[in-house]
Amino acid sequence: MQAPTRVAGRPASTTRRAVLAWAATAPVARAFAQTAADPLPSWHDGPARARILAFVESVTRSGGPEFVPPPARVAVFDNDGTLWAEQPVYVQAFFIADRVRAMAATRPEWKTTEPYASLLRGDLRALAAGGEKALAQLAMATHAGMSADAFSRIVEDWIATARHPKTGRLFTEMVYAPMLELIGHLHGHGFSCWIVSGGGIEFMRPWTERIYGIPPERVIGSSVKTRYELRGGVPTLMRLPEVDFVDDKAGKPVGIQRHVGRRPIAAFGNSDGDLQMLQWTAAGPGPRLAAIVRHTDAQREWAYDRASKIGRLDRALDEAGTRGWTVIDMQRDWRRVFAFEPR
Amino acid sequence: MQAPTRVAGRPASTTRRAVLAWAATAPVARAFAQTAADPLPSWHDGPARARILAFVESVTRSGGPEFVPPPARVAVFDNDGTLWAEQPVYVQAFFIADRVRAMAATRPEWKTTEPYASLLRGDLRALAAGGEKALAQLAMATHAGMSADAFSRIVEDWIATARHPKTGRLFTEMVYAPMLELIGHLHGHGFSCWIVSGGGIEFMRPWTERIYGIPPERVIGSSVKTRYELRGGVPTLMRLPEVDFVDDKAGKPVGIQRHVGRRPIAAFGNSDGDLQMLQWTAAGPGPRLAAIVRHTDAQREWAYDRASKIGRLDRALDEAGTRGWTVIDMQRDWRRVFAFEPR
Repeated sequence: MQAPTRVAGRPASTTRRAVLAWAATAPVARAFAQTAADPLPSWHDGPARARILAFVESVTRSGGPEFVPPPARVAVFDNDGTLWAEQPVYVQAFFIADRVRAMAATRPEWKTTEPYASLLRGDLRALAAGGEKALAQLAMATHAGMSADAFSRIVEDWIATARHPKTGRLFTEMVYAPMLELIGHLHGHGFSCWIVSGGGIEFMRPWTERIYGIPPERVIGSSVKTRYELRGGVPTLMRLPEVDFVDDKAGKPVGIQRHVGRRPIAAFGNSDGDLQMLQWTAAGPGPRLAAIVRHTDAQREWAYDRASKIGRLDRALDEAGTRGWTVIDMQRDWRRVFAFEPR
Repeated sequence: MQAPTRVAGRPASTTRRAVLAWAATAPVARAFAQTAADPLPSWHDGPARARILAFVESVTRSGGPEFVPPPARVAVFDNDGTLWAEQPVYVQAFFIADRVRAMAATRPEWKTTEPYASLLRGDLRALAAGGEKALAQLAMATHAGMSADAFSRIVEDWIATARHPKTGRLFTEMVYAPMLELIGHLHGHGFSCWIVSGGGIEFMRPWTERIYGIPPERVIGSSVKTRYELRGGVPTLMRLPEVDFVDDKAGKPVGIQRHVGRRPIAAFGNSDGDLQMLQWTAAGPGPRLAAIVRHTDAQREWAYDRASKIGRLDRALDEAGTRGWTVIDMQRDWRRVFAFEPR
């Protein structure tokens, strides 16, 4: 643990840091802001692209029959597998593993205590045998017990250098160029774009504005409980080792209502965890866009759906068929996949 | 109960309603948008007004030592007693009473069941004897058991005609003109303004944009649990008779972190329920504004603080003294109190 004063108070440099971050606002996202010539250059001409562009055109045509006023132009995006890669495991799992290794220096007992010992030995099979309970324990050990401010700094520091084991790229480079363009296109047409992820809300907030152009107040995710307290007289929000909200499956419409307070008119997901969010969005009156990113490209990304452990897409794919939702086929529809690939 | 189809799905008119609402965006709030001549015409010259204007000037002066980038210009406002009147009881209590009376027609058993019977007889003393438990029961009976969409329409219909028993004015006219001007001034300077209220989040959202110019996604409040389900195949968010979150006292910083994900730089409250929100805001680095609306005007509004049952201001007033927070004295600082008064 850090000293209470460091944990409790934000360092004086926070404001300076905020100014610097703002001066270089969303450099990644900005590179993908729409251009008049072609709003979606990383997309192949095809049914998915055509449908998305037609939808945006119809809800923004002033005086048109499907016009939607700007405040109601809410679009929601899943994160893992929809905006960035989620294979071989969720990025947050790499964060947990790295944090356990970093924290182990001051926790010698972890070398002989499960599930930490298995992770520290790199024995993933033994770790998996511990099941959900072991993973939850690791998540709590790395996500709670510090202030909200301290956790935010831990994430900022980690995401600045953490790289994908297969590509060697920063995780923040493994975001999908076509989706960044889509967010830029929507922002350019008066939409507000929200992230609705099963991942941790405070794990995403430190970097979503820079990478996606989506500010922290438009991030919805799973959370631990927090408690306000005075620590040595300093107002502090402490993160407790207790789940507060799981923003997955039927939790996603609940999270959307909690944070947005309106039903979205467009939703983008990639797995069965997004099914209810897609249903909720599609069932509203007037024009609606429900779309699924389907991982079909083993060469450039990964190919998985019905049988995958991570990002399983089965029921939602069936429902996309019966309800006529848009399926974005990565291999067919995307000219470029990752933001790090040359244009 | 309404028929399931009505409860579950939004009527087709919702989009049209949204268009109409948007066309007449925030008519009340717009009337109070800042003018170049005097941004705060309903305020007397005095220390509170001077301090507020100096704060806004300092954090928005480009290149100045206290400059805060627009995304970090977050201001939070309590609602009851800070933006509108809260005497003789919270407006939401009138809503609960009206709803119990309206619902009693189809619930004959309420005539002989407490706490409904006391309320229906108008026996407030007997009702008060039931304490917190009775009030919670009435709140749940009127706030849960319907869909989120249906509750939203109930509130919209009620707030359109509900009037204050003393002044005969619509409750939405009993908002403080000086605070509407202040919100307009802040919006005009790149701030985002949020409501952080102990009141129900879904009780406020249907009207805050029209009255305050604050959209539903910037409203933080207390809530019941909701559950996503398919009702006759229709995606529905049902409101359950169970408290999910109490956005009061130490809950306010928690609610702010949950929804905003950043620490505010300005906070406005009026009671001990706002103490922790004021502490949390004031304790951040850089320029901060923590202000308390003090009810000192028995003639134009009400005069109450340390001993009041509603809106008790005691500890927070002490702390305002020791920490140098801004006290807005209604009688001294406000030229005009309510939005319905002539300019």
